[in-house]
Amino acid sequence: MREYLENVRNKVPLVHNITNYVTVNDVANVLLACGGSPIMSDEAEDVEDITSVCGGLNINIGTLHKTSIEGMFRAGRKANELGHPILLDPVGAGASTLRTNTALALMKELKLSVIRGNISEIKTLALGSGTTKGVDADVADAVTEESLDEAVAFVKRFAKEADTIVAVTGAIDLVSDKDVCYVIRNGRPEMGKITGTGCQLSGMMTAYVTANPDHPLEAAAASVCVMGLAGETGWSRMQEGDGNATYRNRIIDAIYNMTGEELEKGAKYEVR
Amino acid sequence: MREYLENVRNKVPLVHNITNYVTVNDVANVLLACGGSPIMSDEAEDVEDITSVCGGLNINIGTLHKTSIEGMFRAGRKANELGHPILLDPVGAGASTLRTNTALALMKELKLSVIRGNISEIKTLALGSGTTKGVDADVADAVTEESLDEAVAFVKRFAKEADTIVAVTGAIDLVSDKDVCYVIRNGRPEMGKITGTGCQLSGMMTAYVTANPDHPLEAAAASVCVMGLAGETGWSRMQEGDGNATYRNRIIDAIYNMTGEELEKGAKYEVR
Amino acid sequence: MREYLENVRNKVPLVHNITNYVTVNDVANVLLACGGSPIMSDEAEDVEDITSVCGGLNINIGTLHKTSIEGMFRAGRKANELGHPILLDPVGAGASTLRTNTALALMKELKLSVIRGNISEIKTLALGSGTTKGVDADVADAVTEESLDEAVAFVKRFAKEADTIVAVTGAIDLVSDKDVCYVIRNGRPEMGKITGTGCQLSGMMTAYVTANPDHPLEAAAASVCVMGLAGETGWSRMQEGDGNATYRNRIIDAIYNMTGEELEKGAKYEVR
Repeated sequence: MREYLENVRNKVPLVHNITNYVTVNDVANVLLACGGSPIMSDEAEDVEDITSVCGGLNINIGTLHKTSIEGMFRAGRKANELGHPILLDPVGAGASTLRTNTALALMKELKLSVIRGNISEIKTLALGSGTTKGVDADVADAVTEESLDEAVAFVKRFAKEADTIVAVTGAIDLVSDKDVCYVIRNGRPEMGKITGTGCQLSGMMTAYVTANPDHPLEAAAASVCVMGLAGETGWSRMQEGDGNATYRNRIIDAIYNMTGEELEKGAKYEVR
Repeated sequence: MREYLENVRNKVPLVHNITNYVTVNDVANVLLACGGSPIMSDEAEDVEDITSVCGGLNINIGTLHKTSIEGMFRAGRKANELGHPILLDPVGAGASTLRTNTALALMKELKLSVIRGNISEIKTLALGSGTTKGVDADVADAVTEESLDEAVAFVKRFAKEADTIVAVTGAIDLVSDKDVCYVIRNGRPEMGKITGTGCQLSGMMTAYVTANPDHPLEAAAASVCVMGLAGETGWSRMQEGDGNATYRNRIIDAIYNMTGEELEKGAKYEVR
Repeated sequence: MREYLENVRNKVPLVHNITNYVTVNDVANVLLACGGSPIMSDEAEDVEDITSVCGGLNINIGTLHKTSIEGMFRAGRKANELGHPILLDPVGAGASTLRTNTALALMKELKLSVIRGNISEIKTLALGSGTTKGVDADVADAVTEESLDEAVAFVKRFAKEADTIVAVTGAIDLVSDKDVCYVIRNGRPEMGKITGTGCQLSGMMTAYVTANPDHPLEAAAASVCVMGLAGETGWSRMQEGDGNATYRNRIIDAIYNMTGEELEKGAKYEVR
C-alpha cells in the first residue's frame, strides 16, 4: 500500500472537484492533507478549462443543481477525452429521482474509473432504471460478516456490468473490479457522526487513482485504508469532552501526518 | 427538558435543510452531534422527494438565490402536506427587500411550526409589508432585563398573529407561543464571534421539534437551552491561545456529549 | 501597524462578501476574529441592498457562477457609488477563460481599491487580454529574494496601470501602490497546505481597508502581516499529531487573540 500513498505525495495530483457545498471545505483540506491539490468549479462554461489543467475529476451529486448537471457532463466528456480518471460519488441516489437519474445518466455517458458510495446508493445504481440495464442487487442493506460473500459477489457483478471499479463503504468496505475485491476493515463507527467522511474519501480516492494510473484498483483500496486508519488514529487522540467537531479535525490531521510505513502497518484488508 | 433531548437521540430525526452555504457544514455537524441526521437539498426538482423521506424541514434564507426560493416553496408545501414541522430562519430579513419579501411570502403561504431569528429579523416580519398585516413591533432592539416585559408581550402577540412558535435569540432568548413564553438565560456573549451559531440552532431546533411532535414549544425551548449550555461548557474548555475557531468546535463537541441529566441541571429558564 | 488593527476592532467594519463556497465559512470566521463583521450575498437582486448596509466589498471569483457574475457587477457599481472600498481576489485567473475575462471585466468597469492574488493570477491580469491593455509581466513565477527587485518593479507598474493597490502573496508578500511597496516576510510555508488562507486574507484585508480609509496601502499591508504572524503563532501552538485541519483553527484563533502590540512586534516588513 505504501507506494500508492507515496506516489500521491510525490506527484501532487491536481483534482477537479464538482461537489456539494456541505462538505466541500473538508474535501479540499483532505486533498491537501493527503498530498494532492484541489480545484473546485461547477459552472458549465468554466469546467472544461479547469479539468484540462487537472489530472483527475471527482463528481459528487450531493446538493445537485440543475445548472451544475451540465457542468458534470461537460467536465466528464473533457476528462474522458484527455484520459483523466473520473470518480462518481452518487450521494443520495435512491433518495430522489433527480439524483438517481443524474447518476445513471453520468454512468451511461461517461467512462468512469470508480464509483464510490454506500451500499444503498450502489444498489440503486445497480438496479438501474427503466431505460438502463440493471444487475441483480438482491443483497443485504449493510455489508456485515454474515452478508459478506453475497456482497462481494454483487460488487464484482456490478463492477463488470458498469465496467468500472466499485467502492462500497460502510462498516466493512469493499473495493472491487470484476475479478478482485479488497475487503477492508479499517475505520471506526463514530466516523458516521461526522458529515462528509464519504465525500472526503471520494476526493482523496480521486487523487490516489490519478497518481497511480497503472494500479487504480490497488490505489482506490489504499485510499480507503488511509481514511479508515486515519479514523482510528484520530480517535486515539480524542480527549475527554471532545466530540464530532474535534474528531473531524483529528482525522484530517491524521491523513496529513500519515506515512507509507504507518499505512503499510495499519491497513487491514484481505483480497477475495 | 431531558426527555426532549433523549427523544432526539432515540428517534434520530431526519431533517431536510435548505440553508445558506456559509454555515451549512456546521449545521450538518450540529444535527449529527445532537442525535439527528441531516440532508441538504435546495434544487426545486429535488426537494419534494428529499423532504418526503425526512421528518422535518429547516428553511434558512441566508445567501438566498432566486433559484432556491422556488425550492423553499415546493419543499414547504410538500412538508405541510405530509404534516412535517417547518422552521423558518429569516436570516437578514430587514437588510434587503428580497429577503424580507421572501420571508413574508413563506410565512403567508406555508404553515410554519417555528420562526427563529434575532430581534431585528423578527421585528421586520412582525411589521409585515404593505400587503401583509403586521403587528405592533414597537419594542427595543435588544432583549434585556429592562425591556423584557415588553419583549415577552411582543413575541406572544406575534406568535398569535403568525400562528406559530416564535424564537428570538440574543443575550436573553425567548421561545413563545401565544400564551406561554420561555425566557432562557444560557449562553455566552463570545458565541456571537462565531459565524452561524444561529443557523446551527435552527437546524437543531428542527430536529427537536420533529422528534417531539406533541411538545413543540417545550422542545424548541429545550434546543435553545442545549445551544446555550453547550456555549458555556465549550467555553469552560477553552485554553490560552484558543479563539473563535476552536470555540466553534468546542460547542459542537459539547452538544455531541450532552446528556439529558446535564441539560436538566444546566438549563436556566423561567416560564412567563 | 498597531493603529490599523485597532481601528478594525474599534469600528467593526461590516464587509459584504461575494465569495466561493469552498472557503466561505473560514472567511466569515476570520472576519469575526479580526474584529469585523461578515455578510454574504451573491444573488443579483439581493446584492445592492446588502452592499448598501456594509462598509466594504470583497469580490472573490473562486467557484464562479454565471449567475453570480451579474451580482458582482451590481454590487460593485453600488459600492463605487457609495464610495465603499472594493477588493478583487481573482482566484484562478489564468486557469480558465471565464475567470480571466471576468476578472478583467471587473477591473475595467469598477474602481477597485485592492487586487489581491498570487503572482500567477496577478501576472495574468497584468498581461490583460486582446481587448485590454496589459503591462509587461515578464517576471519570475515566484517572488524570491533573487527575483525581488524585478517583482517590486512589476507590481508598482501594474498598480499604476490598474490605478489600485496590488497585493501579491506568496513566500514573500508584496503590497504596493505605484510608488511604495511593502515587502513582507511573515508567514510559514505550511499555510499553503490549508485551503483558503488567501481567501481569508482577502476578507480580512477588506475589513482593514474599510476601517482605515485614509491609509488603505498601510492597512492592506498590516492585514498581510496579521495573517502571516498568525500563521507563525498558530504554528508555535501545534502539537504532535496535529495537521492542516488543526492548523487552520490555530491561525484563526491567533487572529482572534492578536493585539496591536503583538502585531507591532511581530510584523516583518520593509518599504521599497
